[in-house]
Amino acid sequence: MKLLEERIRTDGRIYPGNILKVDGFLNHQIDVTLMDRIGEAFYKKYKDCGITKVLTIEASGIAIAYAAARCFGVPLLFAKKSQSLNLGNDLYVAKVHSFTYKKDYQVILSKRYLSSEDRVLIVDDFLATGNAMLGLTDLCKTAGASVAGIGICIEKAFQSGGKELRDMGFSVTSLAMIDHMTDDGDIVFRPTEEP
Amino acid sequence: MKLLEERIRTDGRIYPGNILKVDGFLNHQIDVTLMDRIGEAFYKKYKDCGITKVLTIEASGIAIAYAAARCFGVPLLFAKKSQSLNLGNDLYVAKVHSFTYKKDYQVILSKRYLSSEDRVLIVDDFLATGNAMLGLTDLCKTAGASVAGIGICIEKAFQSGGKELRDMGFSVTSLAMIDHMTDDGDIVFRPTEEP
Repeated sequence: MKLLEERIRTDGRIYPGNILKVDGFLNHQIDVTLMDRIGEAFYKKYKDCGITKVLTIEASGIAIAYAAARCFGVPLLFAKKSQSLNLGNDLYVAKVHSFTYKKDYQVILSKRYLSSEDRVLIVDDFLATGNAMLGLTDLCKTAGASVAGIGICIEKAFQSGGKELRDMGFSVTSLAMIDHMTDDGDIVFRPTEEP
Repeated sequence: MKLLEERIRTDGRIYPGNILKVDGFLNHQIDVTLMDRIGEAFYKKYKDCGITKVLTIEASGIAIAYAAARCFGVPLLFAKKSQSLNLGNDLYVAKVHSFTYKKDYQVILSKRYLSSEDRVLIVDDFLATGNAMLGLTDLCKTAGASVAGIGICIEKAFQSGGKELRDMGFSVTSLAMIDHMTDDGDIVFRPTEEP
């Protein structure tokens, strides 16, 4: 998606260790106009798949899921990252390892809102090691829900998550795929289909 | 806002201790159509106030802020709840006490995205003790940004937060104000102006 690639080049910041900061438009301050275009791109790709829910994980995924859910006309559902005192015990639970924070955490989802009748589009801002996405696909599997696709804004294609998910048979659509980043700020994108 | 009051009566669940669960449409699974109406309500109220940013706090506020920011045509900005390894050190920080989780936490915001030129609409799902909202107004004060208003979906008017914020001079707009809840599931709403 050229619009997103250009925005990453313009407003993204690269730090040593393959860290790309896009907090000016994607996951801290959010450009809702860009996000609406991202939601439309996922809609175009999966509009004939009978999507009943758009699922993401707090917090950065919520705006993306909102933009997509609006297009599909279905509810957005976000998994939470730890046991909430107010959520009750009737939960689906999966374990996720975060490389960013160097610890394990649980993703949880109320059993009320996901069932074997659901056909799910999972979305998130980044795909790198793929652990968060594996956690969400685990939650869907436990619920008996089918995963129609995984929509990602920025895939770090030099990390293993995308390959692993595709090898498992998931349809992964990444709007921008980074093949390579250098510490002096250069980004090489892998060509993607324009949605 | 009748639409929201009716939805709370239909799909909200009351538990002992004045706990109201609205996770079927507002803060776990999210009804984006309802949320769009909520965003429009805040827009109607504050459209002539020169809003430049819609500010909220992760995670439940993000969908509400998205809906509002779309109407205003301005960026959404969400404060994070703890020191993120990837956020950098150039941060505004305020302390918040959570009664729900019975602990203090920090709300943080990158200095890049809020300045004295900003006129802010703060939004959130619930207002009870008001501590989270006080944290966000503190962040704005530190940044030199002015707070044009605070938009809340559900105010527990029997708790002190709303009164405290109004006494401080903030314009607080709550779309549903709960005067009283009983353990057997009855809710008494305080009349509010229809947006």
